Amino acid sequence: MRALKKSGTSPEVLVLELGEERKFMPSVLKVAQCAQRAGVDRHGILVALGGGVVGDIVSFAASMIRRGVGHARIATTLMAQIDAAVGIKGGVNFNQSKNYLGCFHPPEEVLVDPDLLKSLPLAAVRQGMAEIVKIAMIRDRRLFEMLEECGETLIGTRFAQPVAVADEVITRSIDGMLIELSSNPYENMTLERYVDLGHMISPALEAQSGYTLHHGEAVAIDLAYTSCIANDAGHLSDEDLLRVIGLLRRLDLPTNHAFLNEALVLRAFEDTEKHRGGALNLPVPTGIGTCDFIRSRAELSDATVTRTLMRLAETEDMLSEADLCVVI
Amino acid sequence: MRALKKSGTSPEVLVLELGEERKFMPSVLKVAQCAQRAGVDRHGILVALGGGVVGDIVSFAASMIRRGVGHARIATTLMAQIDAAVGIKGGVNFNQSKNYLGCFHPPEEVLVDPDLLKSLPLAAVRQGMAEIVKIAMIRDRRLFEMLEECGETLIGTRFAQPVAVADEVITRSIDGMLIELSSNPYENMTLERYVDLGHMISPALEAQSGYTLHHGEAVAIDLAYTSCIANDAGHLSDEDLLRVIGLLRRLDLPTNHAFLNEALVLRAFEDTEKHRGGALNLPVPTGIGTCDFIRSRAELSDATVTRTLMRLAETEDMLSEADLCVVI
Repeated sequence: MRALKKSGTSPEVLVLELGEERKFMPSVLKVAQCAQRAGVDRHGILVALGGGVVGDIVSFAASMIRRGVGHARIATTLMAQIDAAVGIKGGVNFNQSKNYLGCFHPPEEVLVDPDLLKSLPLAAVRQGMAEIVKIAMIRDRRLFEMLEECGETLIGTRFAQPVAVADEVITRSIDGMLIELSSNPYENMTLERYVDLGHMISPALEAQSGYTLHHGEAVAIDLAYTSCIANDAGHLSDEDLLRVIGLLRRLDLPTNHAFLNEALVLRAFEDTEKHRGGALNLPVPTGIGTCDFIRSRAELSDATVTRTLMRLAETEDMLSEADLCVVI
Repeated sequence: MRALKKSGTSPEVLVLELGEERKFMPSVLKVAQCAQRAGVDRHGILVALGGGVVGDIVSFAASMIRRGVGHARIATTLMAQIDAAVGIKGGVNFNQSKNYLGCFHPPEEVLVDPDLLKSLPLAAVRQGMAEIVKIAMIRDRRLFEMLEECGETLIGTRFAQPVAVADEVITRSIDGMLIELSSNPYENMTLERYVDLGHMISPALEAQSGYTLHHGEAVAIDLAYTSCIANDAGHLSDEDLLRVIGLLRRLDLPTNHAFLNEALVLRAFEDTEKHRGGALNLPVPTGIGTCDFIRSRAELSDATVTRTLMRLAETEDMLSEADLCVVI
């Protein structure tokens, strides 16, 4: 803000108290009202300074004001820096349906400054880490190993230590995301996207919790559960399943939830099919850093859901016993 | 609807009572809610059956549902058939600002059936005619002459008579509009558009009337007033000014309004500049069927507004006396 004022610009400032539960149309209209009051013209620029929700709201507002004005994103959370601000999407939840309304609206600029992470609550750093685990799982074994080695320290120091690893983890995450998105930014070439890993049951979990469960936590649970599906379908070895769930737990991310049951998974399958044009297109890990799709429900047996929910609980028990052994 | 059912499709139907005063976000959200209830997936299609407002609302809703689903427009009014449904825009009014929020979202199909005009109120046919006058003024002298010859009959018979002329008028209007839009459909190449003729003071007139003044009527008033500006700036001859205002009056379209005063025009200048990225880019007729731009306020003197408002009143008086002579 000081930098903007110093440059002679005096922007109109709107402070929004946001959270996933206020990622809804009224927040978008507040931004539109502010832009209207400020007399933003067709060459105007909105600047989103904040986390993923602020970016989503401002991006969506910018897409519709005068049928589209420019916007820039200054990402202040880990989640925004490596995921939400990367790409061209904005959107809001609608009647408990996550991101049901939204846009593709490329920002003019995205600014990522890891120094901003220093003032974050630890929980917010941890939540962002879930998306880093995801990007590692789908395409970057080395990144996964870095998280296994240094993930806890990175969270504990808010990415201040180890310096070189911190920078590389953020860079690899953003680069990986950009490479995954770049061939299909408008999602009109295919609805098969590896980056959708971790985003099948997570929307339903978040919605059912009234958005008290954070997106990153929901993604972590989804990563754990989807790995069980991959294991059940013969794509992922027992050893790699243990590594995935083990890493998530070491980072103190949740891997299960009281709301996670058969009904929720079946509903999530249906919602996913609707959002992906009738096909399931479920990305599943096939190893550490590799991924494939389960394209249709037909590839899963009726008993899959029951079996995989049990598998998740068993794996967690195994890990707890292992932890116990270490402690003893 | 019967045709759709016959084809084995059973669409969810939402009936919206719309008008310009309900061209607002709540109507868009009603459509979104209906789509959500109906389980529209990412390959789903919304069909807008109605006039320009229905098209605008459905188009905007389709642009944001799941970040964009398909839509088709079946245009049932003259205004929609030759103007609103041609092109790729949707949008709503926001805080008295016309089309402040909206989208560019190409429809999959646009269906135009002139038979649908038979059940329209005469006033609706007349309102649509204003946009036909506009397209004639900017690029089609022959179309203008056809309106001079047959415009009253076309309105009176709801485009049933004269058959050949009716078809040609609609075809020329749509073709003209498409040619004007085709080089710059997303309005990102330039903000100079001839089709913006008649759309400088009309948004302010409509808004100030609380949207009781119809868009077509507001456009007619704008065409008359902008022709006075063109005449004052030396672009349009006195004779052609008389022809324009004469045609509008013969079609029983308004050419002036109690709200049309200096303050409104100055405000409209400012709003237009904001919407056109800082430049006025005002299209003005330079003859019958030709057009140019007044690009900046600097090309107009301070006294222009006062003088042109007087010029409009004088021209109307002259025409009234001429009418009187004919009657006697």
